[in-house]
Amino acid sequence: MRRIYLDNAATTAVSPRVLEAMLPYFTQAHGNASSIHGFGREAKRAVETARRQVMKALNAAAPQEVYFTAGGTESDNWAIKGAALARQGGHIITTAIEHHAVLHTCQWLENQGFSVTYLPVDEFGRVAAAQVEKALREDTILVSVMAANNEVGTIQPVAEIGALCRERGVLFHTDAVQAVGAMPIDVQAMKIDLLSLSGHKIHGPKGAGALYVRKGVKLDAFIHGGAQERGFRAGTENVPAIVGLGTAIEDACENLAENAAHMTALRQRLIDGLMTRISGTRLNGHPTERLPGNANLSFDRVEGEALLLRLDLMGVAGSSGSACTSGTLDPSHVLMALGLTQAQANGALRLTIGTDTTAEEIDAVLDILPPIVEDLRRMQR
Amino acid sequence: MRRIYLDNAATTAVSPRVLEAMLPYFTQAHGNASSIHGFGREAKRAVETARRQVMKALNAAAPQEVYFTAGGTESDNWAIKGAALARQGGHIITTAIEHHAVLHTCQWLENQGFSVTYLPVDEFGRVAAAQVEKALREDTILVSVMAANNEVGTIQPVAEIGALCRERGVLFHTDAVQAVGAMPIDVQAMKIDLLSLSGHKIHGPKGAGALYVRKGVKLDAFIHGGAQERGFRAGTENVPAIVGLGTAIEDACENLAENAAHMTALRQRLIDGLMTRISGTRLNGHPTERLPGNANLSFDRVEGEALLLRLDLMGVAGSSGSACTSGTLDPSHVLMALGLTQAQANGALRLTIGTDTTAEEIDAVLDILPPIVEDLRRMQR
Repeated sequence: MRRIYLDNAATTAVSPRVLEAMLPYFTQAHGNASSIHGFGREAKRAVETARRQVMKALNAAAPQEVYFTAGGTESDNWAIKGAALARQGGHIITTAIEHHAVLHTCQWLENQGFSVTYLPVDEFGRVAAAQVEKALREDTILVSVMAANNEVGTIQPVAEIGALCRERGVLFHTDAVQAVGAMPIDVQAMKIDLLSLSGHKIHGPKGAGALYVRKGVKLDAFIHGGAQERGFRAGTENVPAIVGLGTAIEDACENLAENAAHMTALRQRLIDGLMTRISGTRLNGHPTERLPGNANLSFDRVEGEALLLRLDLMGVAGSSGSACTSGTLDPSHVLMALGLTQAQANGALRLTIGTDTTAEEIDAVLDILPPIVEDLRRMQR
Repeated sequence: MRRIYLDNAATTAVSPRVLEAMLPYFTQAHGNASSIHGFGREAKRAVETARRQVMKALNAAAPQEVYFTAGGTESDNWAIKGAALARQGGHIITTAIEHHAVLHTCQWLENQGFSVTYLPVDEFGRVAAAQVEKALREDTILVSVMAANNEVGTIQPVAEIGALCRERGVLFHTDAVQAVGAMPIDVQAMKIDLLSLSGHKIHGPKGAGALYVRKGVKLDAFIHGGAQERGFRAGTENVPAIVGLGTAIEDACENLAENAAHMTALRQRLIDGLMTRISGTRLNGHPTERLPGNANLSFDRVEGEALLLRLDLMGVAGSSGSACTSGTLDPSHVLMALGLTQAQANGALRLTIGTDTTAEEIDAVLDILPPIVEDLRRMQR
């Protein structure tokens, strides 16, 4: 059976070029990057090349501002806990639609005595810089607003929020796991202090992420131990994964405009096609300020999970929310924050396009999906 | 130039069988293990197979006792902080020669108000269960003693300490990063509550580790976010690395007796050869209760770093301490705790044998090393 993968927001396939770059570091150049012998120096050089690739992709000022981690979730945990614990108390501002890596970290900090404001979003999932401004307090130490949402794809006004925070002397963190490689990111222009990113959303390997930390920002270490990453992130450097992340982010950013145009066209073909063919269809998220590859739709009187299972039987991989919350029966916290009813939220389907998705695949889904929705609705009567 | 890799305690090459097992999960079965579609279920099955491989290797009672992490350091951080923070205060017992992943984590907890006893060790690096017993207090919540030391290879009486802790109702954690695959580990027989392990020390991939958590042990999550690992370790499952870890630990444990005999024979050939050929040579660590592959020697009037660089020029990769502390000029905290003088500690060379090391390589080192030591001593005069 033909398989169509439209769950690229959950994870992507490693690209052939990325895998090829990684392979030597498993079996030949396998040294520990902290060792001083030849094997180690070879590994170290590869890590530093990747660091410069990430620096360039973000327009960071120096390679030393890039720290490698095991992924976006660790980066979020480190950024937020590290910034908070270095300041021993205070107030944090975030939004109601952040990834759980941010929300659950903030909730943990609340248990440690920090105070957190969760800003509401509008019906499209947007938060305004003015809302952040109103929420600022004397003791606000950190603002964390994602660059783009993982479920509905809505892009936030990161540059405006960054400018506001810089002006007010408050740290600004952004979870850019979904945004990097999908939209231009410039940490200097956007006045970002801390930025989380991940490799496996951009055809790089799982288990590789980075945290950008602007020079001069005070941050506690999160994982303690050896002196890796200049003493700020202990643990043997995951050389092959770091090399893969560097290659993937270089590819993603060099081809960003082209990839974004390709994905936007396919996404729009998918959204328009489904809205034309299926009555009672609602687009979730912002109509234009959204990630190129993200389509999130709710179909009246249809359960998203049932739809997913039927699609899966036809070889089409999608998602009803984020993969990170699968297994829970609660409706998506993101969709509820956008003001959907519980039924609408439970009817949502997320189809996310990758750089390797084709128009033929989209057309196949446009043929496959409408009869399934019709059938499920018939069963509801 | 022929290259001889004798730094297997720092990291090992990924074995061909491990790499082969991992490869499909980069590009074909690339799904997110938390997704419910076919790609996701395929990834999930692979993760669960690996979990059973780890369970079997440790003789754990159930696969649910195995949690995957990004490595040994994260496992140590999680075990110790997770156990401590779940108990909100109290006393921890560890030893002076633990890996920095344990020591620095304990120091962080001291800053959070916990109290920590760092037990001294004897001249061979051993700690006795009786010392642990004497140090126990009413408020002791955790004992953390490594199974075998990464620098000098000394094996600790883990089963005795485990039995004592179980009897006294105190949690027992062991950092078994160096021990797994090198000596038999049985978490049930040894009465271990928490055990850290790593993939890349046993010819598995970097970026893959596990924490064994005995059923019923209360532990706070360390990395917050998605519902992965039953809500206890957030972050997209690193499927290829987890598959690699499972394969590597299965291989290591199935061939343990044979590998240990091979490595012990080569290690002894190396130690005996060097002690015979070079006067003023001291073996660091225990003469018999040591890891099969570990040789740690100090040469009078020789700097370990200088020795390393000269060896490197000859294609031989060794280490002067642990890779995790390279770059620091402080003498090894492990060797100082064994009672070495600063000069002796600075003269230490660690050569660690892998399952793939050959007798010819050892003989080559026995030819290469003595003239270098002689030369360095001549320069000292």
